[in-house]
Amino acid sequence: MTQKLVVVGGIAAGLSAASKAKRLLPGLRVTVYEKSGYVSTGACGLPYFVGGSVREARDLLSLSKEDLQGRRGITVKTAHEVLSIDPASKTVEALDLENGARISDSYDDLVIATGASPIRPPLPNVGAQGVFYLRTLEDGIALRAAAQSGVKRAVIVGGGLIGLESAEQLAQTGISVTVVEAMSSLLPILNDEDAESVRQELIKHGVEVELNARAEEVLTQDGKAAGLRLSNGKELRAEIILMSIGVKPNTELASRCGVELGERGAIVTDNRMRTNVPSVWACGDCAESHHRITGMPCWIPSGTTANKQGRVAGSNIGGEAVTFPGVLGSQVTKVFDLYAAATGLSLKKALEAGFDARSTSIIKSDKASYYPGGVDSRVTLVYERCGGRILGAQAIGGISVAGRVNLLVAAITAGMTVSQLNDLDLLYSPAVAPVYDPLLIAAAQAIKQVVAE
Amino acid sequence: MTQKLVVVGGIAAGLSAASKAKRLLPGLRVTVYEKSGYVSTGACGLPYFVGGSVREARDLLSLSKEDLQGRRGITVKTAHEVLSIDPASKTVEALDLENGARISDSYDDLVIATGASPIRPPLPNVGAQGVFYLRTLEDGIALRAAAQSGVKRAVIVGGGLIGLESAEQLAQTGISVTVVEAMSSLLPILNDEDAESVRQELIKHGVEVELNARAEEVLTQDGKAAGLRLSNGKELRAEIILMSIGVKPNTELASRCGVELGERGAIVTDNRMRTNVPSVWACGDCAESHHRITGMPCWIPSGTTANKQGRVAGSNIGGEAVTFPGVLGSQVTKVFDLYAAATGLSLKKALEAGFDARSTSIIKSDKASYYPGGVDSRVTLVYERCGGRILGAQAIGGISVAGRVNLLVAAITAGMTVSQLNDLDLLYSPAVAPVYDPLLIAAAQAIKQVVAE
Repeated sequence: MTQKLVVVGGIAAGLSAASKAKRLLPGLRVTVYEKSGYVSTGACGLPYFVGGSVREARDLLSLSKEDLQGRRGITVKTAHEVLSIDPASKTVEALDLENGARISDSYDDLVIATGASPIRPPLPNVGAQGVFYLRTLEDGIALRAAAQSGVKRAVIVGGGLIGLESAEQLAQTGISVTVVEAMSSLLPILNDEDAESVRQELIKHGVEVELNARAEEVLTQDGKAAGLRLSNGKELRAEIILMSIGVKPNTELASRCGVELGERGAIVTDNRMRTNVPSVWACGDCAESHHRITGMPCWIPSGTTANKQGRVAGSNIGGEAVTFPGVLGSQVTKVFDLYAAATGLSLKKALEAGFDARSTSIIKSDKASYYPGGVDSRVTLVYERCGGRILGAQAIGGISVAGRVNLLVAAITAGMTVSQLNDLDLLYSPAVAPVYDPLLIAAAQAIKQVVAE
Repeated sequence: MTQKLVVVGGIAAGLSAASKAKRLLPGLRVTVYEKSGYVSTGACGLPYFVGGSVREARDLLSLSKEDLQGRRGITVKTAHEVLSIDPASKTVEALDLENGARISDSYDDLVIATGASPIRPPLPNVGAQGVFYLRTLEDGIALRAAAQSGVKRAVIVGGGLIGLESAEQLAQTGISVTVVEAMSSLLPILNDEDAESVRQELIKHGVEVELNARAEEVLTQDGKAAGLRLSNGKELRAEIILMSIGVKPNTELASRCGVELGERGAIVTDNRMRTNVPSVWACGDCAESHHRITGMPCWIPSGTTANKQGRVAGSNIGGEAVTFPGVLGSQVTKVFDLYAAATGLSLKKALEAGFDARSTSIIKSDKASYYPGGVDSRVTLVYERCGGRILGAQAIGGISVAGRVNLLVAAITAGMTVSQLNDLDLLYSPAVAPVYDPLLIAAAQAIKQVVAE
């Protein structure tokens, strides 16, 4: 039986694994090594800390080091970087970043939960003061300090979730914000129409958007960032440049000890989160998942997935045979007053995956037409032409789109068809939903495109 | 082939049936007889018209008589009461309520969509001026006029959906409102804890609540209502008394021509909405449904069900074999800032129906704990002890409970277990939902109570 568990990474996945294993095996000795100075922080909350919606950094910490050590009986070593893993001797070597000391530790089981890091574009002057990333709490503290220092302009490179949430938050502090996106539309999880609605929402709130534009050079003055030159020739003035062009899995440590990586560079595991190396597990943003519709490996970093995978790893280490069911790639964001959500396959991805897919979009108020305050939602269903099985969905509108897309997560997971969706006995009350819910309207429209199997 | 369709009732179900049949068979002659002066009104919107949230009566009409007659080619006779049906000769006799003339009409197919009427309690002075019901648009116009006439106090008898929505709306116009409920808790669709939260929300907003109290006598002054005497001895002063103790199906007409009624007095149909009398169909609040979990006949009036049943009847009359899938009894309401929703079986009903059922309740914010503006939701899951199949759910909290209960409508309909619920890849973003959605927390709790099948 396992007596000693070492966990590399003290954020969502690592702590979930450590806590679950310790709960199942109270006698287990558990040590968590975390490179940063904090444990249990989430990148998802950082934009709201930067913008001041979340007042204190400590509010972002769901568990303190003291909680973990005291209440849960887990040894936590922050500011410790694990340098190497030796699967033959089942040992790790770590560096104490505060005093430079090297520590050797042994394990019966090892969990790699090293997360992901921002992609750093190789641009001239990218190392200048005033260029930021937003992944760790330290990043958030630095960016917030800059935002509160009286600067007037910021450029955000990358129109993904974190980029747009940061744009909203920085704009709300009074800074002029421009978002620069290399692709032709924002938020790749959305279809073009929904992405265009997001762009309009940003513009309505004073955020400028440059599409089809790449960052080419950080412009500096006195050694500090002063602007950004784009591939379209424009030069944007800005004292803050936030690089938010995506993340890559932190897998160098794993790779060096023989752990297999997948196509996207994330760690390959089985559905119990075991890697190919005996007694070595992986979970969270450094690990792959499989997609519940295509059945194929995929890498879609998410805080919830990290927590769940960590819990699965911890359960198995603790002797409970539990499997991770895979993901649908569900994502949601708020951009000012607009909410956008998606799950499963977009039409494009469904066709790429070989499905004979169709999609249907409808626009409908999320309350009874006569009830004040209803917000139009656009709902898009993606489904198989033969038989009408639902493969994916996107929605944009008020906050109610989250509930509707979550319903579709359940429907897709259950293998429901658009006809079965149309048959659901959904809630109705004028103040909450129209007599025919937008999902029923979308389903009824979609049914017309479906042919019998 | 059917050439002439007569529809009795011009609200949701009747007009859905008429419109669908006419769309499928453009040559069909369709006549709709409606007793009231209006078509296409819904009872659900009336509280909001009474309180002024909906400004104009015409806003409540989703279709005008002119639309129906012109665009859809359907003959609509308002203020016409159908007095009798003769299935042998396939004729109906109707009374023109404006001029007293009698009309005879023939049909190939007949749809009974006569709806439901408020239960009128046999109390002393219940016919006095100032005693109201809220079912038809005429009712709504009369109650609104009274509410705007400077009265100070109203008593609402009945703590169901319409009663509480009316309480909110009347209170918002500045009238002092007391709700009187004969049972020990409000809103019978809710469990006791949730019902108590609703009571507290009413009190917080200045609405008084009398539980375990029956109306015994309408007190009058100068022939007008002046108050209500209760079974607990209290005498409440009020110039407006709204009787909202429930509805009963309008089935006398159907019954007199041999149409079979069920236990609750509603019309028995098959799943294509056919009654036992040839060529006679029934749909909407006068007709039964069957429950998707118990499989048993049930009568749960709902605007959405009425529309759907009407469409099913119209489809079958038009030659398309479509079936009504049954209901889960999903219901939702807003009471001031609190939203309450339920679907499927409560624990009590599940046990009564013979299930070895358990229930689990959790309380959790509907956003990330650090994100401002989150509202606690209480989510209750009802499930089979063996295997964990979900049988029902209730939730109370912010408006997000609607989306979560709708998700459970899909999950229950698909036969999902609490484990399968726990495995769903639900949306997460701090501004929209916590990293573990309240439904995942509830599912994880419930799993602990489940034993293998």
